[in-house]
Amino acid sequence: MNWYLQSGKDSDVAISTRIRLARNLSEFKFNIKDKESVNKLEEKIKELSWNIGYGLKFFKLKDMDDITKMSLVEKNLISPEFALNRNEIGSILINDDENICIMINEEDHLRIQVFSSGFDIENTLNLAKELDTKIQSFLNYAMSNDYGYLTSCPTNVGTGLRVSVMLHLPALRKTKNIEKVLDAITNFGVNIRGIYGENSKSSSDMFQISNKKTLGISEEDIAKNIKIITEKIIEQERAARKFLIKDNLDLEDKVYRNFGILKNCRKISSSEVRELLSTVKLGTDLGIIDEMTDLKVLKLYLYTKPANLQKYLGEQYEELERDVKRAEVIKQIINEK
Amino acid sequence: MNWYLQSGKDSDVAISTRIRLARNLSEFKFNIKDKESVNKLEEKIKELSWNIGYGLKFFKLKDMDDITKMSLVEKNLISPEFALNRNEIGSILINDDENICIMINEEDHLRIQVFSSGFDIENTLNLAKELDTKIQSFLNYAMSNDYGYLTSCPTNVGTGLRVSVMLHLPALRKTKNIEKVLDAITNFGVNIRGIYGENSKSSSDMFQISNKKTLGISEEDIAKNIKIITEKIIEQERAARKFLIKDNLDLEDKVYRNFGILKNCRKISSSEVRELLSTVKLGTDLGIIDEMTDLKVLKLYLYTKPANLQKYLGEQYEELERDVKRAEVIKQIINEK
Repeated sequence: MNWYLQSGKDSDVAISTRIRLARNLSEFKFNIKDKESVNKLEEKIKELSWNIGYGLKFFKLKDMDDITKMSLVEKNLISPEFALNRNEIGSILINDDENICIMINEEDHLRIQVFSSGFDIENTLNLAKELDTKIQSFLNYAMSNDYGYLTSCPTNVGTGLRVSVMLHLPALRKTKNIEKVLDAITNFGVNIRGIYGENSKSSSDMFQISNKKTLGISEEDIAKNIKIITEKIIEQERAARKFLIKDNLDLEDKVYRNFGILKNCRKISSSEVRELLSTVKLGTDLGIIDEMTDLKVLKLYLYTKPANLQKYLGEQYEELERDVKRAEVIKQIINEK
Repeated sequence: MNWYLQSGKDSDVAISTRIRLARNLSEFKFNIKDKESVNKLEEKIKELSWNIGYGLKFFKLKDMDDITKMSLVEKNLISPEFALNRNEIGSILINDDENICIMINEEDHLRIQVFSSGFDIENTLNLAKELDTKIQSFLNYAMSNDYGYLTSCPTNVGTGLRVSVMLHLPALRKTKNIEKVLDAITNFGVNIRGIYGENSKSSSDMFQISNKKTLGISEEDIAKNIKIITEKIIEQERAARKFLIKDNLDLEDKVYRNFGILKNCRKISSSEVRELLSTVKLGTDLGIIDEMTDLKVLKLYLYTKPANLQKYLGEQYEELERDVKRAEVIKQIINEK
């Protein structure tokens, strides 16, 4: 099963871990836009894909339909800007499990990404480094003795490493402690952002935490720093949950009402699902609701997103139709044995 | 089964019909308050109850516990003021089916009430008149040759007759036509009021229509007038429903969401039940929702009211506990085979 349908360590709070390495090839200009160079670079990677191994397969974005591309965006495997560019630029290397996805000609020539469910920086980083070493054995990276890896945007120079953990923090939000916790954390060299954009921060309990600096600090220290801070947040979220469950009738009622709406509605938007599901997930993690499982929660999150819904059903639908189909899929998933 | 758990003619819109006759005995003062006269009158009726027949049994209010009295109020069998008076005044004659309930020493010496489910003025009035004649064969009513029956309050003098029909008008409210319809109707000598008080009018889709005048008009004309006006309202409510069902996805979604909340909540107030249930009833009447039946809707309306909930469970509960028990009872009723 794909990593994003699995539960991992601490996955009551930590949904997933991502490692990203920004790499560029010395023989090409940075951030290339001319078709010829783009093609040359992408063909080069394509030819190497067999040698790199890991079951990686090469796809050009221009050969993929929009729904397939958006389904990758919804899984956080590729960036929206990358998926939506209309210049016939960009390819990916991806394996069947989808825990490795390398973007080619995004902002950098290569963005090596490795994903895992739950909170697992160490193994994820190790796999990314292993993969990086393997790729480096076939290609010359653009490097500086002074700075390390060179990148298209200066914020990534150095290690080119971004460690991200996706966190579900409903109890900190419900107890109004989230701002306090997040404010405290930004002093420790991390970025934290609501996962559905800055503006809709309040509509979601999902937050992504990642390192700010990539330069003048070792990969190990970056990883350690994120690890420690994440552990602190997890601890605080769990404390908030303990507080909520003390007087759990309100919470139980809310969990089951949301469940009742999800199971019975006849049409529903993806943002409403996300909102209702957050409390249902909290209830599932706290053992409040028998009717749900971790797998069902993960499936509901994934397959109610617009593109993945259509992937799941194997058909394309207009928006209102999608809202109706979404309600059907939710009922189906909830009723699975 | 009791009349209030049955469906009658036109009961998609007309919930119930009530006939009330105000009568007073010539040998007593009106609206008596002194204990001696009160007792004398009530003992007299008690002794007669066997002769009157109809399976009527006599109960003094002071011998009934508060929950039992409130459960009768919630069924609209007795008035709240009558139930709540603390002067040890008042008795009732009631049969097992509870379609006959005579209040003794309410505003008048006797308030003969007959109820039926659905829209059935004719039979209900006939039974009330039959009963009235029977009672009159044992007692002398206070009457005037000029006016007819004399009553404690001048608004009831004459026939002493009040014909009431309880109507469920969710579609007229949803389509914002209710005010227009109700305004038009008040010109035809009828009172119409939201059934949960004037102030909370907007929180309920239940309306009671009844005649204004009791004097200078025959019983038959009063009945005919209410019948014609009720038929008009029923017609308009049904037209509004046809309009709603045309684009029925919104309605179906709302019906099922409300059903989902009712079935899954862990605590709920009686007013929220009433609100959610109104649309579920509409869905049931329109054949939109398979999971419900008329009987279940009627049971849910009745047994979620505070006193009847406690009657149903045979226990007394504090308010918060009641909200929890109410949620359990709702689930039970919905799941009945």
